[in-house]
Amino acid sequence: MKRTEIATIGEFGLIQHLTEKIELKNSTTLKGVGDDAAVLDYKDKLTLVTTDLLLEGVHFDLMYVPLKHLGYKSAVVNFSDIYAMNGRPKQITVSLGLSKRFSVEDLETFYEGLQLACSIYGVDLVGGDTSASLTGLTISITCIGEVEKGKEIYRSGAKETDLICVSGDLGAAYMGLQLLEREKQIYKGEADFTPDFEGKEYLLERQLKPEARKDIIESLEKAGIQPTAMIDISDGLSSELLHISQESKVGCQIYEDRIPIDFQTAAMAEEFNMNLVTAALNGGEDYELLFTVPLSLHEQILEMKGVSVIGHITKASFGNYLIGRDGGEVKLKAQGWNSLA
Amino acid sequence: MKRTEIATIGEFGLIQHLTEKIELKNSTTLKGVGDDAAVLDYKDKLTLVTTDLLLEGVHFDLMYVPLKHLGYKSAVVNFSDIYAMNGRPKQITVSLGLSKRFSVEDLETFYEGLQLACSIYGVDLVGGDTSASLTGLTISITCIGEVEKGKEIYRSGAKETDLICVSGDLGAAYMGLQLLEREKQIYKGEADFTPDFEGKEYLLERQLKPEARKDIIESLEKAGIQPTAMIDISDGLSSELLHISQESKVGCQIYEDRIPIDFQTAAMAEEFNMNLVTAALNGGEDYELLFTVPLSLHEQILEMKGVSVIGHITKASFGNYLIGRDGGEVKLKAQGWNSLA
Repeated sequence: MKRTEIATIGEFGLIQHLTEKIELKNSTTLKGVGDDAAVLDYKDKLTLVTTDLLLEGVHFDLMYVPLKHLGYKSAVVNFSDIYAMNGRPKQITVSLGLSKRFSVEDLETFYEGLQLACSIYGVDLVGGDTSASLTGLTISITCIGEVEKGKEIYRSGAKETDLICVSGDLGAAYMGLQLLEREKQIYKGEADFTPDFEGKEYLLERQLKPEARKDIIESLEKAGIQPTAMIDISDGLSSELLHISQESKVGCQIYEDRIPIDFQTAAMAEEFNMNLVTAALNGGEDYELLFTVPLSLHEQILEMKGVSVIGHITKASFGNYLIGRDGGEVKLKAQGWNSLA
Repeated sequence: MKRTEIATIGEFGLIQHLTEKIELKNSTTLKGVGDDAAVLDYKDKLTLVTTDLLLEGVHFDLMYVPLKHLGYKSAVVNFSDIYAMNGRPKQITVSLGLSKRFSVEDLETFYEGLQLACSIYGVDLVGGDTSASLTGLTISITCIGEVEKGKEIYRSGAKETDLICVSGDLGAAYMGLQLLEREKQIYKGEADFTPDFEGKEYLLERQLKPEARKDIIESLEKAGIQPTAMIDISDGLSSELLHISQESKVGCQIYEDRIPIDFQTAAMAEEFNMNLVTAALNGGEDYELLFTVPLSLHEQILEMKGVSVIGHITKASFGNYLIGRDGGEVKLKAQGWNSLA
């Protein structure tokens, strides 16, 4: 494969090379890459802003994450935060810290992934910063989106008796990561080795190429359902539920047997001898939507494809609990990031 | 000094600790830190977005940059980009990658600097991301600002015969960096050493605690002057002038004897035996504003405090030149970032 050193085209050359083919799609984008700031016109809508920092060795391992997938995922995880406010992502800025290890072709591949995500989700790439790095790859993405006034959904709106709903299924991305980590260990030990991913494609896809739930936001709108609180699941169901409880000053009860889990996730937990519920509660990186709706919408929500009702909101004094298959109660705990521990 | 390990309060604890005292100041900020995205209401104004990535060892050296100054500077360099569009900065998001080397107190100090800048410039800190890092400190800041429709100023509006203006003076931040680097080298050699910064305070201040030219933007507005093109000087006068020429499809002539240079900068260049004009043209980090105005505003612009007219815009075919004190012409060259070379 061709390898062009970044030094041969320089900073300005690199930015121009990577961004020259970008076509702006949104009427809110007046000016994208190429000035001191992007210029946006949000007229009478609200502007949403979210940001994510991804660091090599902490958030991704280039040994098993292809650069194109990394570009795609870096964009999608930000879109997910905008959908979690009931918004629509419209623009992103992308900042990269690059060591000499990366070639112009590597960055083209990364940008292909980024632009594929932007194209599928209708988002414009409007700016960024490219810089040398002494160590690995640093990716910082900020996403800007819009929402009609009064339609924005915070974490703080859940009310007692509201139903707790979740889209898709949980724990698969975490299992995908375990799978990749295992194969990496095996690979380090032997040279002639073909990874055995058959029947586990879904887990890999969920880890390497996650999607944001644009479809669920659109379905909710079509059904005329305005959730009372919403968050996306990036750190695990348990952690996100506690955010809603804390911000809404309520408690919650969810039921183990209602947590949606894919067959491949369950089979993999069995094979790895891991606790399936723990993976679903604390695995993270699912990028599904967790939201609450008034009890009166019970029938409507049951009719929605791809949404499961997993429990209900209680008084704050009742705390936050998982009711097991045997009827036992387990207190929910935040896991979150503990890489500094 | 007290040292609290970040691990003792965890990710969510850290974010809460650092952001709990933040008071929102702008009517455009509906919701700041604490949800999936910040919510902003820009009504009938345009939204501006800019972003900067700062990496330890590349953009700053913690051996001589105090964390409070680093926080201040990280915010200000982003504000400068918004002013360069003739806008007003209103919100920032701050993402940090942190190694175990940093304590909670270190981050408090960094945030003090950030919040001081936000307070002086009237900006709300509305979100961010905090993450573990395997190596040094990573800082990614995105700034959002507003500008009245029709008042935004691009790099592309300069016209033939326009006057080229620059605020403040140039080259001092670069000299400040040379000074700090020299003291660092000396410090490495001997233990009992007091840095000799007397009479060089301005150079250090320009490097360690730069300001964005809010005052110039306000003066221009008060005087009713709408520049035709504008950019802030982060990579050096030469490089930024070429951006204006390229985007506006024009050429330029500037005069060596008109480039504003402070006395301390000149004295330091003498002491270091460095070329003063090179420092002023290519030094960078000045965060002054470079702009063009119609020739008809000549008298008005000469009356403005803190602004120098350094040349004029020509036809593109005339190229981009510095006219020396002796009348000789030197072609302007882009320097930009070459740390990957």
